[in-house]
Amino acid sequence: MTTNQNVNDKPSIGIVGAGLVGCLAALAFTRKGYDVNLFDLRPNPSSIDRSRRNLRSINLAVSNRGLRAVEYVDEALSRKILEHVIPMQGRMVHDKTGLKQESQLYGLHGECINSIDRSYLNDLLLEELAESGVKVYFEHKLVKLGNVDTAPTMEFAKKDGNVTFGFDYIIGADGAHSHFRHQMQKGMRMDFSQKYIDMQYMELYIPPDPEKKFAIDANHLHIWPRHDFMLIALANEDGSFTSTFFSPWHVIESITSSSEFTQFFKTNFPDAYNLIGEEALVSAFDNNPRGSLMQISAYPYNSPHGKAIIIGDAAHSMVPFYGQGMNCGFEDVRILMELIEANEGNIEKAFLAYSPQRKDDLDAICKLALDNYYEMSSKVTNIWYLVKKKLDYTLGSWFENRWLPLYTMISFRDDIPYSKAVTIEAKQSRILNNLQIGLVGSILVYGAVQGARLYEKWKYR
Amino acid sequence: MTTNQNVNDKPSIGIVGAGLVGCLAALAFTRKGYDVNLFDLRPNPSSIDRSRRNLRSINLAVSNRGLRAVEYVDEALSRKILEHVIPMQGRMVHDKTGLKQESQLYGLHGECINSIDRSYLNDLLLEELAESGVKVYFEHKLVKLGNVDTAPTMEFAKKDGNVTFGFDYIIGADGAHSHFRHQMQKGMRMDFSQKYIDMQYMELYIPPDPEKKFAIDANHLHIWPRHDFMLIALANEDGSFTSTFFSPWHVIESITSSSEFTQFFKTNFPDAYNLIGEEALVSAFDNNPRGSLMQISAYPYNSPHGKAIIIGDAAHSMVPFYGQGMNCGFEDVRILMELIEANEGNIEKAFLAYSPQRKDDLDAICKLALDNYYEMSSKVTNIWYLVKKKLDYTLGSWFENRWLPLYTMISFRDDIPYSKAVTIEAKQSRILNNLQIGLVGSILVYGAVQGARLYEKWKYR
Repeated sequence: MTTNQNVNDKPSIGIVGAGLVGCLAALAFTRKGYDVNLFDLRPNPSSIDRSRRNLRSINLAVSNRGLRAVEYVDEALSRKILEHVIPMQGRMVHDKTGLKQESQLYGLHGECINSIDRSYLNDLLLEELAESGVKVYFEHKLVKLGNVDTAPTMEFAKKDGNVTFGFDYIIGADGAHSHFRHQMQKGMRMDFSQKYIDMQYMELYIPPDPEKKFAIDANHLHIWPRHDFMLIALANEDGSFTSTFFSPWHVIESITSSSEFTQFFKTNFPDAYNLIGEEALVSAFDNNPRGSLMQISAYPYNSPHGKAIIIGDAAHSMVPFYGQGMNCGFEDVRILMELIEANEGNIEKAFLAYSPQRKDDLDAICKLALDNYYEMSSKVTNIWYLVKKKLDYTLGSWFENRWLPLYTMISFRDDIPYSKAVTIEAKQSRILNNLQIGLVGSILVYGAVQGARLYEKWKYR
Repeated sequence: MTTNQNVNDKPSIGIVGAGLVGCLAALAFTRKGYDVNLFDLRPNPSSIDRSRRNLRSINLAVSNRGLRAVEYVDEALSRKILEHVIPMQGRMVHDKTGLKQESQLYGLHGECINSIDRSYLNDLLLEELAESGVKVYFEHKLVKLGNVDTAPTMEFAKKDGNVTFGFDYIIGADGAHSHFRHQMQKGMRMDFSQKYIDMQYMELYIPPDPEKKFAIDANHLHIWPRHDFMLIALANEDGSFTSTFFSPWHVIESITSSSEFTQFFKTNFPDAYNLIGEEALVSAFDNNPRGSLMQISAYPYNSPHGKAIIIGDAAHSMVPFYGQGMNCGFEDVRILMELIEANEGNIEKAFLAYSPQRKDDLDAICKLALDNYYEMSSKVTNIWYLVKKKLDYTLGSWFENRWLPLYTMISFRDDIPYSKAVTIEAKQSRILNNLQIGLVGSILVYGAVQGARLYEKWKYR
């Protein structure tokens, strides 16, 4: 057994998963002086041709919570990230004729969420880690956790055999299908649930226009909402858009040929059909994988003696409809580091405190993410929704900081925990409903009075 | 790869798990003429000294649903089982003084549930299988499922290496921690949840009295309900009782020595303390494992193409408080076989039909099992509960077949599906609550009238 010796008096940390959350966690611990080792089963992404990377990553939107967590770890890094984002100030809703687009702003004061390329962000984090001296081990597949309650070990399978490392603390950030979590569960009572959503997604691509410019407005998240299914598109720096088609499985499975698929697009998304192009749609239908969506929750996140913990998708995998998956995972890292500070470097105490403190917020955002599919796919075109939203935003601009639309709290107010945002929203929503009833009542009364006047005029004319 | 060839034109069936449900399923299929192969990771139980078997099995109560399923498969077998059961006609509630016992009957007409030894029942089923020519493979640990959608294979690890079998259909009956289910999940979208209940259990033993007879009434399920925790005891054929102590984890963990444990029993279960004996309690505290309780649910139970299915605890592990775990697992087998009949031997169609048909019933009994802990541990001593139960059973005896107490429907009426029982109970419960309010109202009115009369008498005396 290979045991990593501490290079200083700080404890050693082993992290599994060199995705976005695992990388940020590694960076956070190394910046505090810990001896950090990061493992991933995949090959080093810098060794792979970018065009051959898989087509299953929905584009990312980084918003305040994610940025705050990065700033907490490394302020310069957050500036580097912002240099390569495309701000999106609202949704652009495309109607079924393909002729009309309607902008719906996200914030009250022009706040934006930011489209960013996942691979770019991951590469940037890995570069920072390399410069920081974190030991990163690719092609190390976690096989087994040992002694999780006392002196944790992690056994990895490599091409040339297995190797075991020992650490003071271990962290699982290895995504929704986390093997770290699976191993932890063998030695403790961890509640767990995974629930599939009846929905597939398929990645599509909108190329830059002939002048190498954005074919549609880059500063919006484009949505083609069609109730049962929808298309979205987020801009990339090179003038292209990454687009994703979401539908229930029975919809995509009822389409049996690429010509039916292009016809489906021509009918339902005529402008997108033109933007993507017939040939690309045929190729996508024939070749692009269809991803499934699910929600995962586990509890508690930490092992009983505070030696191991899961963060990010490994602990709470949500559907992508609030654009908070990565932001929330980054927030996990900030909350965890702040707890270590609050406990004066006692990681055990911090790990033990993390689960009860974080649970309500993680439950809240997972539920919001699911609810937001309904909002994106159909409510955005509903008149009552639009009236309520208008009222909500009007009140928000009148009573700044005392009336906050839910989207603002989730995406732009990193100081409001997710669960608190939900509580505030519930209160505001009751008021809004009453206002809406009052408004309708007023219109009816006004209409009746006008009607009576007209009748009087008509009677005596 | 070893592939089992069909010995006749009937398809071949591979079943994982030679516990109660797996054995009954194997027997059911072989009786219909299928070529059945049964695998278990454990050694042949007949090769193990019975006294060395583990102390983690809560005693079983077989009731109508279980018996009906066995009868469906083999009527003679159900008679053999009934020769070795101890009928229990009700609960015997022991109070905290250790002096008072109160019988609460289960049925309206003396119906009984039946205490039976798990090992005896399992051995009996294995003997029947051996006589039926089913091939049973012990010490075969399932490693991997393959080609689940087309021609399923199962790879097993044995002492001397791995071996792979191919079957037309495969069934997982390998319990709550089912590896069969885990393997199935890799190739399909199966929802899954496991939730731990904050409760441990510890097996205890009440020996026969000095005359080798039952020390307490054998024909009752004995309960010592103490709100937060409880003790139960079920009779064995040899005059002893298998007893189980249930408590939240913090209760058992707050007891730090065997002397504290015996004191705890002396205080809370004085009569049980005498029956078990100080020495046995000390030994149990020091040596007996503490089991945890959890609920598991998965959905769907079948693979998308109807080649594989999970039954019993592998699909729905419930807490033991309604005594329905095995009964429900046996019912799974009957429902599945009836679906195969209804589909004229088309197993694929039967597997596909099974999940939607069975879901509501399995969800219902899992919830009832959990709710019944509350009933057993505390409600059985509550006056309102007792009044309502009295009313419930009175109405049940007055309106036979038109008013059925829930317990009767679940335990004695195998013709009423679990979910339907819950629906009927909800309707009856509303009526009962109204009756109870009426009853209390009548008593108050009666009291007021009597009071007024006394006052009149007093005024004019």
